[in-house]
Amino acid sequence: MVISMSEELGVKTKKSENFNEWYIEVIKKSGIADYSSVSGCMVIKPYAYAIWEKIQSLLNERFRKLGVKNAYFPLLIPERLLKKEEEHVEGFSPEVAWVTIGGSSELEEKLAVRPTSETIMYESFSKWIRSWRDLPLKINQWVNVVRWEFKNPVLFLRTREFLWQEGHTAHATKEDAEKEIEEILEIYREINEEYLALPSVRGKKTEIEKFAGAEYTVSIEHMMPNGKAIQGPDSHHLGQNFSKAFDIKFFDRDEKERYVWQNSWGFATRQLGIMFAVHGDDKGLIIPPRVAPIQVVIVPIYQEENKEVVLNGSRKLYEKLKEKFSVHLDDRDEYTPGFKFNEWELKGVPLRIEIGPRDIERDQVVLVRRDSGDKSSVPISKISNEIENTLDSIQKSLLERAKKHFEEHIEKVEKYEDLERIVNGKWALGGWCGDPACEKKIKDETSAKIITIPFDLNENPPDGHCVVCGKPAKYNVYIAKSY
Amino acid sequence: MVISMSEELGVKTKKSENFNEWYIEVIKKSGIADYSSVSGCMVIKPYAYAIWEKIQSLLNERFRKLGVKNAYFPLLIPERLLKKEEEHVEGFSPEVAWVTIGGSSELEEKLAVRPTSETIMYESFSKWIRSWRDLPLKINQWVNVVRWEFKNPVLFLRTREFLWQEGHTAHATKEDAEKEIEEILEIYREINEEYLALPSVRGKKTEIEKFAGAEYTVSIEHMMPNGKAIQGPDSHHLGQNFSKAFDIKFFDRDEKERYVWQNSWGFATRQLGIMFAVHGDDKGLIIPPRVAPIQVVIVPIYQEENKEVVLNGSRKLYEKLKEKFSVHLDDRDEYTPGFKFNEWELKGVPLRIEIGPRDIERDQVVLVRRDSGDKSSVPISKISNEIENTLDSIQKSLLERAKKHFEEHIEKVEKYEDLERIVNGKWALGGWCGDPACEKKIKDETSAKIITIPFDLNENPPDGHCVVCGKPAKYNVYIAKSY
Repeated sequence: MVISMSEELGVKTKKSENFNEWYIEVIKKSGIADYSSVSGCMVIKPYAYAIWEKIQSLLNERFRKLGVKNAYFPLLIPERLLKKEEEHVEGFSPEVAWVTIGGSSELEEKLAVRPTSETIMYESFSKWIRSWRDLPLKINQWVNVVRWEFKNPVLFLRTREFLWQEGHTAHATKEDAEKEIEEILEIYREINEEYLALPSVRGKKTEIEKFAGAEYTVSIEHMMPNGKAIQGPDSHHLGQNFSKAFDIKFFDRDEKERYVWQNSWGFATRQLGIMFAVHGDDKGLIIPPRVAPIQVVIVPIYQEENKEVVLNGSRKLYEKLKEKFSVHLDDRDEYTPGFKFNEWELKGVPLRIEIGPRDIERDQVVLVRRDSGDKSSVPISKISNEIENTLDSIQKSLLERAKKHFEEHIEKVEKYEDLERIVNGKWALGGWCGDPACEKKIKDETSAKIITIPFDLNENPPDGHCVVCGKPAKYNVYIAKSY
Repeated sequence: MVISMSEELGVKTKKSENFNEWYIEVIKKSGIADYSSVSGCMVIKPYAYAIWEKIQSLLNERFRKLGVKNAYFPLLIPERLLKKEEEHVEGFSPEVAWVTIGGSSELEEKLAVRPTSETIMYESFSKWIRSWRDLPLKINQWVNVVRWEFKNPVLFLRTREFLWQEGHTAHATKEDAEKEIEEILEIYREINEEYLALPSVRGKKTEIEKFAGAEYTVSIEHMMPNGKAIQGPDSHHLGQNFSKAFDIKFFDRDEKERYVWQNSWGFATRQLGIMFAVHGDDKGLIIPPRVAPIQVVIVPIYQEENKEVVLNGSRKLYEKLKEKFSVHLDDRDEYTPGFKFNEWELKGVPLRIEIGPRDIERDQVVLVRRDSGDKSSVPISKISNEIENTLDSIQKSLLERAKKHFEEHIEKVEKYEDLERIVNGKWALGGWCGDPACEKKIKDETSAKIITIPFDLNENPPDGHCVVCGKPAKYNVYIAKSY
């Protein structure tokens, strides 16, 4: 959070005109993250890291209630272990970073920097699990992972290293595992919607798009401001694919030996990027109050002759508010109030309090909302309540605004010819027969793909037809360009 | 924490007879950690990881008060960056793990898996710091690091990958930096002594033993049960070595440009290993109550005919205690009380509550201390107070016992001929002239080295003579074998 006078605080790119450029400009100017000298690897600066810590604590609390325990498994995975599950290694090996040298010696076997930890964890699971009494086993870790992607890196959204939690569980029955898949997705939805103010679609991935090695993948899909789709957290039912490859068996109550049923699920720092992208505006970031590192910033406005009285009033207010809110008093003498307004708007602090000599006289302050810019004078006696209500209102209004954008950028597609036009800025909602050939045709011929089979639109079999081949539709699906 | 009936819970090795074997046996049997299939890289299982999380929260709280902020920097460091500070790269390159392949392509420049993050962080610091207003800058990260050591790996104590926090700060003056070195060492002492119940010696490392690239290193040194020394957390004053190599300059109040003064400091998972080693006994681990994941375990003792009444009483007690203590009710039906006693003793739970049918009748329970094995009957009405006092008493007694061992294993050395005998099981305390030649002679001719120049014994210049050359001593030093 180091900004010197000479730096340009103004955001030059308009979000509506060039979303991609706007995003990078805002992230860098707001001082929350930066590229490093390794292509695709980022520095997460304290302001953004504090949001991640908040998310960690929210998720930990919820995982704990499900009986999930945190642990730590090694970063480095021997090649032979990664190769044990066939589909898994096929999916991941194109993007693995390999350690081949230790000190000055060539290693006998190269080691993968974990792209995900199924293989290293399940080797242990096969030792730990003996009997039905050991199940369910629910382990989570908060770690860094590396995927050597070759697409253009984008801060938070597409990085070669990112932070995440990865949960890995083993169950005695498929039913028990599948129940957990739903519980986890609900936790992810809650955090996204109620904390990050991000609406989403929940659904199942197609066979082509599922996690490498999974029986099926369910996920949360978000819409970016440019109408593209981006995948949020996901949850994979692994069936017995890995338990067979890693020999994870247990003696069941009937004394018969069976393979366990497994899930894995993850929530990554990408989610911060989606949040920054969705809520920000031409002035900078807007952080939803429930995860904001600073919810309220106090900016005193004074001349030399009334400096002490204004600063004293500001300090008193700060002391009063700090028990209840995450509040920051910006009493730096060397910057003007105007500079400070810009800086905190850029950083997305949801609420600003301005306090000048006349406010002191009248026992009031001015509240300014970051989302709407609305100003109001509030008596000091009512300030605490007023802040609480305003923060709630900002939280709600960010979600509503994002929901509205989401809904306005979905269009039903009936004819295949319309698809290319629709996905140029929107998601298409249409029928699909379920044939991978039709899915592949979309992928090959348009720049879009089937991003999810949404749960809420597939409770009953759909009426329509497949938008590609015209046969009766088996699913309603969203088709969109992927970010 | 998965233990099946068939496993052997008894610890076969006596701590006093073979400490090294005892240590590995206890760590593995207690189910808190395990080796993985990568030599030297370990799995930290939930029980031990919970202690680490406790330490994280204690340190974070204290760092925050000093104005330290958490952030995250990339895992991978380009070779050219690592090479920027000459002594630093010389010290670390023999043990760096290198990534040379991404996907299927050879990388143009090999990337170090961070052994420590000075270089990658300070590249950013040089961009972030412009003016005296940006100082002090205090950044911390909780991460994994890899040092490809070639000595025999030992769980927690010597692993190729470990977890730690690394704090990195930049200051306008040397005085300000040096003040922080002391503040941090005091925090480390407090956590070690008051939470992990580990006594220590604080002092300065010799020039030969200091951190590669530091101006000087201060550290906390512990004694192992076998009388060897092991280094705990340390704090390095880097002077301007790195700021000159990485061009980290600031405009001072007088408008002149100056290089910043820097520190780095770290606390690692090794500390858990030291704690397990110091406190454990022939029955297993003993976890100090203030960091124990389970402080109290309730073991109901019943026959079929009084099962319900005992279990009900146990559950009531559990509900009563759980608000105040970290308590676990072991109501597993398939294990005997004796088996449970062994298991929780092995895991080092500081306090056990036994509750049987006669206890229920008399409204009492039996408390059993893990450290002394002492048993006492306590009326339910007084249980909460009694537990609190007993946990306090265990915490104190573990520290006292460790202090006593420490003091009893220090012996003054006057003559060089006595050194080899003393360091075979103890630390030698003697004079040193300060000449690296004498230090080197000790290292070459005995199996020991100067492990620290203790602060408390060097407040005044020492009277004696150098144990090696006989010239007047400049320092009192501890000489010991290093674990």
